[in-house]
Amino acid sequence: MAGGTRELTVDLGERSYPIYIGTGLLAQAGSLFLKHGLPVKSPILLVTDSSVVDLYADKLEESLAAAGYKVTTAVVPSGETSKSLEMLDELIGAGLEAGLDRKSTVIALGGGVVGDLAGFVAASYMRGVRFVQIPTTIQAHDSSVGGKVAVNHRLAKNIIGAFHQPEFVLYDLDTILSLPMREVRAGLSELVKQGLLWDGEFVRWCDEHAEQLLALEPEALGYALYEGCNIKAIVVSKDERENDLRAILNLGHTIGHALEAVAGYGELLHGEAIAIGMVGAARLAAKFGYDERIAEETERLHVKFGLPVRIPSHLDTDEIMSAMMHDKKFAEGKMVFIVPTDIGRVEIRKDVPSSWVKEIVEGLREGTRQA
Amino acid sequence: MAGGTRELTVDLGERSYPIYIGTGLLAQAGSLFLKHGLPVKSPILLVTDSSVVDLYADKLEESLAAAGYKVTTAVVPSGETSKSLEMLDELIGAGLEAGLDRKSTVIALGGGVVGDLAGFVAASYMRGVRFVQIPTTIQAHDSSVGGKVAVNHRLAKNIIGAFHQPEFVLYDLDTILSLPMREVRAGLSELVKQGLLWDGEFVRWCDEHAEQLLALEPEALGYALYEGCNIKAIVVSKDERENDLRAILNLGHTIGHALEAVAGYGELLHGEAIAIGMVGAARLAAKFGYDERIAEETERLHVKFGLPVRIPSHLDTDEIMSAMMHDKKFAEGKMVFIVPTDIGRVEIRKDVPSSWVKEIVEGLREGTRQA
Ligand SMILES: NC(=O)c1ccc[n+]([C@@H]2O[C@H](COP(=O)([O-])OP(=O)(O)OC[C@H]3O[C@@H](n4cnc5c(N)ncnc54)[C@H](O)[C@@H]3O)[C@@H](O)[C@H]2O)c1
Ligand SMILES: NC(=O)c1ccc[n+]([C@@H]2O[C@H](COP(=O)([O-])OP(=O)(O)OC[C@H]3O[C@@H](n4cnc5c(N)ncnc54)[C@H](O)[C@@H]3O)[C@@H](O)[C@H]2O)c1
Ligand SMILES: [Zn+2]
Ligand SMILES: [Zn+2]
Repeated sequence: MAGGTRELTVDLGERSYPIYIGTGLLAQAGSLFLKHGLPVKSPILLVTDSSVVDLYADKLEESLAAAGYKVTTAVVPSGETSKSLEMLDELIGAGLEAGLDRKSTVIALGGGVVGDLAGFVAASYMRGVRFVQIPTTIQAHDSSVGGKVAVNHRLAKNIIGAFHQPEFVLYDLDTILSLPMREVRAGLSELVKQGLLWDGEFVRWCDEHAEQLLALEPEALGYALYEGCNIKAIVVSKDERENDLRAILNLGHTIGHALEAVAGYGELLHGEAIAIGMVGAARLAAKFGYDERIAEETERLHVKFGLPVRIPSHLDTDEIMSAMMHDKKFAEGKMVFIVPTDIGRVEIRKDVPSSWVKEIVEGLREGTRQA
Repeated sequence: MAGGTRELTVDLGERSYPIYIGTGLLAQAGSLFLKHGLPVKSPILLVTDSSVVDLYADKLEESLAAAGYKVTTAVVPSGETSKSLEMLDELIGAGLEAGLDRKSTVIALGGGVVGDLAGFVAASYMRGVRFVQIPTTIQAHDSSVGGKVAVNHRLAKNIIGAFHQPEFVLYDLDTILSLPMREVRAGLSELVKQGLLWDGEFVRWCDEHAEQLLALEPEALGYALYEGCNIKAIVVSKDERENDLRAILNLGHTIGHALEAVAGYGELLHGEAIAIGMVGAARLAAKFGYDERIAEETERLHVKFGLPVRIPSHLDTDEIMSAMMHDKKFAEGKMVFIVPTDIGRVEIRKDVPSSWVKEIVEGLREGTRQA
């Protein structure tokens, strides 16, 4: 491993795996595959998207070929719509044509879309083959830890999926440099989220290093991704299957998912939608009697990272509310929210009156005068 | 449980589950759901097919409703083509519309097609919900034990799937009475298979009770299904994920699957194709120097059950061979076969020359004079 590479372990018993974070790692992929005992005789399916393929596929393919691997690359259109059963069908077909067997590996090279899709291919191809995540977005620090993989249904996001842990995660910071600035900000929103739900000190660190992070300075970015992955890894290792604790990772996501759905996927990036959602959750905290400064701090921080904190004015409150009522986190019809009780601490509330949520949504609308 | 109901446990640690076999069990489904702690508040999706729905769905729905469950029934066309991603998509949609949550249960009421399809719905809906198998064919004694669930891809059968164990299996012998005779024979072929690979005594018992079995006499049928499930359960509990031992369950399936594929799904029933495949495997045994009477016995037994033991003459040997080479059991390009070494005993051979297989296929063709 090159000097400066950070390594952490996602602790899941026999499904534990390491995450490598550093620069120049793509070129080392082949030797890492060998080190992890991935069989050279079984063909590999490399899944990537139309934006990433020209940037990084060559380097990865070369490294794997040099180590003796036979790689077939399958390219899906960039964007959320590729997380579909149609694309699963195509990739399974590509795997069959490439001769993948039960000892083969599927690689995801790209953002969370490619990670979730290729992960579900790996989970379901012959009922499960090996999987390696090579995230190329900041957002994907989140999707590459925890083993949740899925595609979307016309009626709901991430509804068809599995839990399938990778063999390892390879985070090459060099790949982040080509990421559009808006994607950078959206990804940082999810990094800040990990702090907001678990580690107040990390939130302060992000606050102090916002400039370096936005400039993608490798040392700051490497540290922040390490911390973000680490928090997620801690939570996931305590509750792999989301029976209870893991739900806290959904801070900001109840409102956020509803906004994404109502806006139509694409208008708001995921990280942008949950930035607004986190401000909403923090305002709920005040309703439950917690310090109002939690909401103020949350909002200030997101503004500092250039993230939206208001609901676009053309989105309809009732549509947002009804999108939320269908959200899969409302087990048995009750409204569940992750509510911050301090910066770096949250609780799961299963008793949130929908009238409160509606008030918050109304208050978050662009142009609304704040109470 | 009614008198005469047999019960056995599939031993898989925390994923262990019981199988109930007997008459009049559909009417007891509701109380069994309660006994197994399936939550009344979460809606149930009942998946069945167009042939079974009119015969047994009412009785099941009534029993569940009487116990307080809210059930939505989704009907797929009868037949193998329903094991598709398109049908998965529809059923996930039906689940969403019925309001299924993470504590919900998906029921399969039908044969192996419904079991495999509904099982994959249960495995992937919200990354996994509870599953109950209510098999209505003899063949489905096999598919309802072991947790293998899957749909087909245009290029290969059962290639997209998961391991997902049910909460329990409810085998109501009354439902078998409406099964077309050809399906009865095909199902018995798989029952005999369980004996051929594990238990010579059970094979003898089947031989002696062929008439009662073909007449669907409840006592004989109940015992045979119990034994068949039991053998499969023993093998699966020793190797849930098919790392080694579980592969023996594929006795007859290498040639069988190829025949199904080349004939076009539908011409040969699965049980018919593997009947021929078992005779083929037994002939391979002779090539390896085992007693020739294994092949003679295997053939005699299948003929007694009215099953085909020859490859239909219009199927092309080369096509059969190439269908086999793509079979997923040929890990890393070697030919693997389950070969009987005695009646009730098999071994996994990974060194089978394809020339031998071709000879056997040629020799099994209809109208071929036997050497
Ligand atoms: N599985 C999980 O636990 C989990 C957690 C969070 C989010 N997600 C999922 O992740 C997805 C969002 O991930 P995302 O934000 O990475 O989206 P993404 O994969 O769509 O990537 C964003 C955009 O950036 C492009 N891109 C990716 N890497 C690039 C690079 N290095 N240079 C230039 N362009 C690049 C992509 O082509 C795409 O257009 C959503 O589908 C969400 O549901 C999953
Ligand atoms: N998961 C596993 O481990 C496993 C093992 C073996 C087979 N399988 C799968 O099982 C499937 C074959 O199962 P099958 O033979 O039960 O096929 P099936 O489900 O298609 O049923 C056979 C036919 O009988 C009809 N039918 C079902 N129950 C009936 C009843 N009680 N009365 C009248 N008609 C009825 C069905 O509508 C269908 O037309 C295949 O897809 C095979 O891949 C899976
Ligand atoms: Zn998120
Ligand atoms: Zn079979």
